[in-house]
Amino acid sequence: VDGQQAAKISATDRGLSYGDGVFRTMRMVAGRVQNWHLHYAKLADDCARLALICPDKTLFEQDIAQFSEHHAGVIKLMVTRGDGLRGYAPPVISTPTRISMISALPNVDPVHLSAGISARWCQLRLAHQPRLAGIKHLNRLENVLARAEWQDAAIAEGLLLDVADNVIGGTMSNLFIVKQGVLFTPDLALCGIAGVTRARVLAYTTRLNWHVSITQLSMNDVLAADEVMVVNSVIGIWQIHTLDDKKWAAGLVTPLLRAYLEGDND
Amino acid sequence: VDGQQAAKISATDRGLSYGDGVFRTMRMVAGRVQNWHLHYAKLADDCARLALICPDKTLFEQDIAQFSEHHAGVIKLMVTRGDGLRGYAPPVISTPTRISMISALPNVDPVHLSAGISARWCQLRLAHQPRLAGIKHLNRLENVLARAEWQDAAIAEGLLLDVADNVIGGTMSNLFIVKQGVLFTPDLALCGIAGVTRARVLAYTTRLNWHVSITQLSMNDVLAADEVMVVNSVIGIWQIHTLDDKKWAAGLVTPLLRAYLEGDND
Repeated sequence: VDGQQAAKISATDRGLSYGDGVFRTMRMVAGRVQNWHLHYAKLADDCARLALICPDKTLFEQDIAQFSEHHAGVIKLMVTRGDGLRGYAPPVISTPTRISMISALPNVDPVHLSAGISARWCQLRLAHQPRLAGIKHLNRLENVLARAEWQDAAIAEGLLLDVADNVIGGTMSNLFIVKQGVLFTPDLALCGIAGVTRARVLAYTTRLNWHVSITQLSMNDVLAADEVMVVNSVIGIWQIHTLDDKKWAAGLVTPLLRAYLEGDND
Repeated sequence: VDGQQAAKISATDRGLSYGDGVFRTMRMVAGRVQNWHLHYAKLADDCARLALICPDKTLFEQDIAQFSEHHAGVIKLMVTRGDGLRGYAPPVISTPTRISMISALPNVDPVHLSAGISARWCQLRLAHQPRLAGIKHLNRLENVLARAEWQDAAIAEGLLLDVADNVIGGTMSNLFIVKQGVLFTPDLALCGIAGVTRARVLAYTTRLNWHVSITQLSMNDVLAADEVMVVNSVIGIWQIHTLDDKKWAAGLVTPLLRAYLEGDND
């Protein structure tokens, strides 16, 4: 917390009071955060969207250096608007709180990387809030409620629709589908989180001259797809092999994108 | 924090990570929290909506007893889903975090209680999320962004519309309007916070056999009203005397409701 070894933060921090902050979750491999520059750029963008002061990159790099004894893990960074008096008004002069933490990499079932995962549709519908859409902010009750809809450990992810019945992504991931040679991913102008791995897939496939479309997708678009995938910075990419009653055979695109995503293209 | 004198909470608390919790803000006068039973009932309801375990009433009462040396103040209570591993899924067994804090009563301009306040319309539009509507949860970035729209200390409150251009309330208050002998307040089924003071006004005026309507209100309904008021548990009730270009003379209903609200009707 703010460069000090600490397990606690102020009980009056606006991150707790209002979720007034942003975060990042990244993969550390061989003592190095994958795609760190992309992650910091996204953190800084998200801070700017909320008029938060983003701590200097070097401060986070010093925090992360303290974790280098760990070979691998998940690094989570948070920036909040800092301590505040009661009241929603952001302080005229605020000192952000910077939190950096490490935890173990999740154990991933090897089947998730070969055949893929089982997924389900969530009941919860994401609200439209263009002022917050795309930002990885600390107001995540929709994700919590959606993820609480199932306990079956065999279901690795739930897919979310918005109030207009557009598919937006997974509870913790962004979604891609392939159909007739075109790669599609949901437009996130009204809700959802625009993750770094999504951006990497879009940049890479555009460079390969694929036909790529950021658009509105319906449940039927997903069900009619040739291949359906979810991505995030910790899991990389998983194909969905089962979605309720629908099943897909292992596709070609997922392993291709995985090979790219496993690299570090900063 | 959990009954201990502490200024800090765990940096891995889900209240910070996801805003996974609820809160209450109440007025303490003469060492006693006004309408405590109503506030606890609302806290318990809000916890139930999020499947949070609400700590026993007696635990909060013990916390509040420790503040009794203060004659008066604002008491804030928070309940979060407690410490959590990374990931949106609520832990199967969670131990809620209970936070009770006191701060000074805000200095209120006496004019706010006589002539009333100046208010403005906010640009931000509240999203529709029926799963969260009404709950005083910790995901309050919409309120923060709306309150950040003005710094002019002469403006005491901002009024919020939703994505469908219905008036929902103030950034920190619920709204009532009087028109041709009928008391109206916005329907909060899709967004907004249904506060305890709003419920007290509704209960009281219904008991008085007033014509009371919980309904959709437009900006024009507010501008055409005979009297416009905002309420919350800390400020009580303020009439709006100026809303951008529109002005109202001091009305009859505000002082009547204030006289009632100043009591404690638990």
